[in-house]
Amino acid sequence: MRPTIRDLGEIELLNRLKKFMRYGQIDDDIAEINSSNKSLLINTDLLVEKIHFSDEISNAKDIGWKCITTNISDLICSGSENIISFNVGLVLPPNTHWEWVENLYEGMMEAMEEFGGEIIGGDCSCGKEKMISITAIGEKNSLRLHRGNALPGDYIVSTGYHGLSRLGLALLTSEKLPSEAQISPQLIKRAINAHKRPYPAVNALQALKQCKPESTNWRAAGTDSSDGLIESIRGICQSSNCQAVLSKNSVLKYPDWPEDSCWDEWILNGGEDYELILSLPKEWAEAICKTLKSAQIIGFIKEGKPNIFWDNLERINIQESSLFRHF
Amino acid sequence: MRPTIRDLGEIELLNRLKKFMRYGQIDDDIAEINSSNKSLLINTDLLVEKIHFSDEISNAKDIGWKCITTNISDLICSGSENIISFNVGLVLPPNTHWEWVENLYEGMMEAMEEFGGEIIGGDCSCGKEKMISITAIGEKNSLRLHRGNALPGDYIVSTGYHGLSRLGLALLTSEKLPSEAQISPQLIKRAINAHKRPYPAVNALQALKQCKPESTNWRAAGTDSSDGLIESIRGICQSSNCQAVLSKNSVLKYPDWPEDSCWDEWILNGGEDYELILSLPKEWAEAICKTLKSAQIIGFIKEGKPNIFWDNLERINIQESSLFRHF
Repeated sequence: MRPTIRDLGEIELLNRLKKFMRYGQIDDDIAEINSSNKSLLINTDLLVEKIHFSDEISNAKDIGWKCITTNISDLICSGSENIISFNVGLVLPPNTHWEWVENLYEGMMEAMEEFGGEIIGGDCSCGKEKMISITAIGEKNSLRLHRGNALPGDYIVSTGYHGLSRLGLALLTSEKLPSEAQISPQLIKRAINAHKRPYPAVNALQALKQCKPESTNWRAAGTDSSDGLIESIRGICQSSNCQAVLSKNSVLKYPDWPEDSCWDEWILNGGEDYELILSLPKEWAEAICKTLKSAQIIGFIKEGKPNIFWDNLERINIQESSLFRHF
Repeated sequence: MRPTIRDLGEIELLNRLKKFMRYGQIDDDIAEINSSNKSLLINTDLLVEKIHFSDEISNAKDIGWKCITTNISDLICSGSENIISFNVGLVLPPNTHWEWVENLYEGMMEAMEEFGGEIIGGDCSCGKEKMISITAIGEKNSLRLHRGNALPGDYIVSTGYHGLSRLGLALLTSEKLPSEAQISPQLIKRAINAHKRPYPAVNALQALKQCKPESTNWRAAGTDSSDGLIESIRGICQSSNCQAVLSKNSVLKYPDWPEDSCWDEWILNGGEDYELILSLPKEWAEAICKTLKSAQIIGFIKEGKPNIFWDNLERINIQESSLFRHF
């Protein structure tokens, strides 16, 4: 029996790779380096053509923006808003136009102008398909968000809307929508923008830091919802060894979002929305909802084997929720 | 006119990418991050199947060893022997066997056991061809080797033999050899090992540090010969804006290396040998040749537009020497 990567699936593959690593990105969004009295957070992301991006859906500038911002989102959801640097590895087929490469980097520069950081190095090679590998480095701050920091009694907070990016993807690819519901021009614009130009939750992180009540310490669990809302909560439950109970009515829908329940799937498992999903002590959770208009308490954490339930005790099928398997 | 990457060639492509970066790996082997009172050196390398490695030539363990050691070589030739960490990005076709992945990581672990460092994170995706992206981080030491540190009057030192890895590749692929010269079993073994299991010049770096005469300061230029001996000297001349004069008789040949001059090309431009190529003040150059048996003064640096000459004034064609163009 020599299993292939397809036999294993991505989760089992990552699980098997754990034994080769001290800790870091496999259990969390980020790896960490202690460099005397300053600590650094490090994140590597790969983007492969046709899997993570496609010229039919986005232009090179948008792709450049997205490579950098998705990396920044991992730093932000780990507590770091001080972005230091990026190393960019680029695999390109020989018939790639320079114009495409230039636009890609210009998109990256736009993102760095917005969020900080600079490209300090990288590598380049030809290959059959385009591939972008980004290693981002940020400075660790007073608040270190870990997936594994949740405790029973915590409230689960989402800092914004979900499903927009998934709708944007469907609109860009002319995919059949869940139902024939009317979609407002404003929602169309917002959804396409969410997909092409994701905006990491730096404001939410700042609000989170500012609103912390003096009565609580800096312990908070967090991740981003890049792999979907449910998947991000699953990650917190898994790393913190606890259960989540979610309130369906509390999960925010974008104002114009279609009412039909068949559209809910994209809110729960659409992915690529880059909001912060936090597990916080009650007072801190309430404080951030006061400070940040878009933040919402969507459930709570309790003891038990890693699992997610709706508040009507219905179990959420985590296996089905993991849409972001690339094998 | 929309030039493709093939139209531009790798050097022009890297040149065009410079405007998007502060400094770092494009002009040198490495990028640098200041993290309060400790500085870090960072290097990203991409390895693409069929271009940088192939299952027909090397097994997965050897490939794993090579990915890590080629990265370490960039840290070492920048002065760092304190290897901190690696982030590994892996693109794999779905039909890749887990066994291959496990062996790859085991080869990486062997290299880390030998030279230090640990894998702290990474990413994984499927794709059409295998690709390995490694970002290595090391600690900056008292000696910071830059390509751009050479000064007229310096001696050029090579810390070991060249051509072995290229011969190893030819033997592994049953490529026609430059001539029908006899090759000893020992040379065959050494050449194949040089290609499959390159050994970064950590001993040479340590010797370099230990033997520095008190009369000179820590200024030294250096790079590794991963892209070939001549290409490494070209890099130093380019970054230091100076000329190199090489003595053909001084370039060391491995004891059993065939005498025929048609074999010289592999010594000069074979690549993947990972020796240190240094530009040092005379006293320091002489000191390292006394300390390190395999080190040899092979030429000197003089003023002038970047170029390389033999000591009979024959100019070395740099364009032809750059065999490591992957586009």
